[in-house]
Amino acid sequence: MKNIVLASKSLDRGEIFKRANIPFEVMVTNIDEDEYKKEISNPIELVKQLANAKALNAKKKLAQENKEAIIVAADTIVELDGVIIGKANDEEHAFRILKKLVGKPHNLITGIAVTETYNPKIILDHDSTSVTFLDLTDKEIWDYIASGEWQGRAGAYSIREKASLFIEAIQGSSSNVIGLPMSKFYQILKKEFNQILL
Amino acid sequence: MKNIVLASKSLDRGEIFKRANIPFEVMVTNIDEDEYKKEISNPIELVKQLANAKALNAKKKLAQENKEAIIVAADTIVELDGVIIGKANDEEHAFRILKKLVGKPHNLITGIAVTETYNPKIILDHDSTSVTFLDLTDKEIWDYIASGEWQGRAGAYSIREKASLFIEAIQGSSSNVIGLPMSKFYQILKKEFNQILL
Repeated sequence: MKNIVLASKSLDRGEIFKRANIPFEVMVTNIDEDEYKKEISNPIELVKQLANAKALNAKKKLAQENKEAIIVAADTIVELDGVIIGKANDEEHAFRILKKLVGKPHNLITGIAVTETYNPKIILDHDSTSVTFLDLTDKEIWDYIASGEWQGRAGAYSIREKASLFIEAIQGSSSNVIGLPMSKFYQILKKEFNQILL
Repeated sequence: MKNIVLASKSLDRGEIFKRANIPFEVMVTNIDEDEYKKEISNPIELVKQLANAKALNAKKKLAQENKEAIIVAADTIVELDGVIIGKANDEEHAFRILKKLVGKPHNLITGIAVTETYNPKIILDHDSTSVTFLDLTDKEIWDYIASGEWQGRAGAYSIREKASLFIEAIQGSSSNVIGLPMSKFYQILKKEFNQILL
């Protein structure tokens, strides 16, 4: 197996690879995400272009270091009715976001980009997982907000932490929910780069 | 919030509580699971009865120690076409199990029992999550088996480890897949024991 470089500083993504016993190195990229977010309003297109930019950034650095590797980059957003739901600025904002997410499924969409240091081929794909909350009262939403878990989280919640208490169901890839659609990655490596990760 | 006792030595279940920032104590129970498995062939009935037995066992110990607590117990099995899929005895057996699970969704069913030390009420419920594998070749199944991950696992795979590479989708509770249906637990505590866990 070739070396794998994960172009993401997300601890959750790293944990998925570690659990799967896949050796990898982390490369932090410097992309102006806000610029992309201003220009691209389509959620799927946005995450694919962000993943693409991160992968190309890592690819350039690896070429400068003469390091051959498979590069994987990803970006995840929360989407409801075609609109991107970002992070909350304060508790009132977190309440408005969570109130919208109660009683109606929303999607976690991850864009993934896979390439190699010396291979012009780059594959862009995405995976989408639907998430359904329990029906929460306003008081329950405020109780959750008091935990502070909403801070810095797209959609103002964290599925594997306290919010697990009110995630009724998901539909789609379970690793995608944590930020890395593993079966997509497996299939891309197999079909496009002739590598079997098992 | 009352003390919570988790009547399970499963590290995965404990991790779910820890991530959700729910204080709890673990109590290991001694139940003859094989006896239940011999007598009960219905998968849902089996996991509910196993959870019930674990909860009652913990309840008895807690009463002896004069410790008031909310007790939660759970048991998870893999089910395909109404039949319980157990653990594999050897690599050939693991292959036959995984071969069956490829190309057809199966269910992870968890039985949950919730009670309190000095409360005669005990609530039994279950949650079911459907899991769909990618279509794997025989060679890919054998490659996976070589990792040894099949050992000691119901269904001969571990969804959060290497098997994440070929889990195409799940449908249902994501915490249930790891052994504890958190939204069920939340609802039972709220409706039956008047406790809000948030």
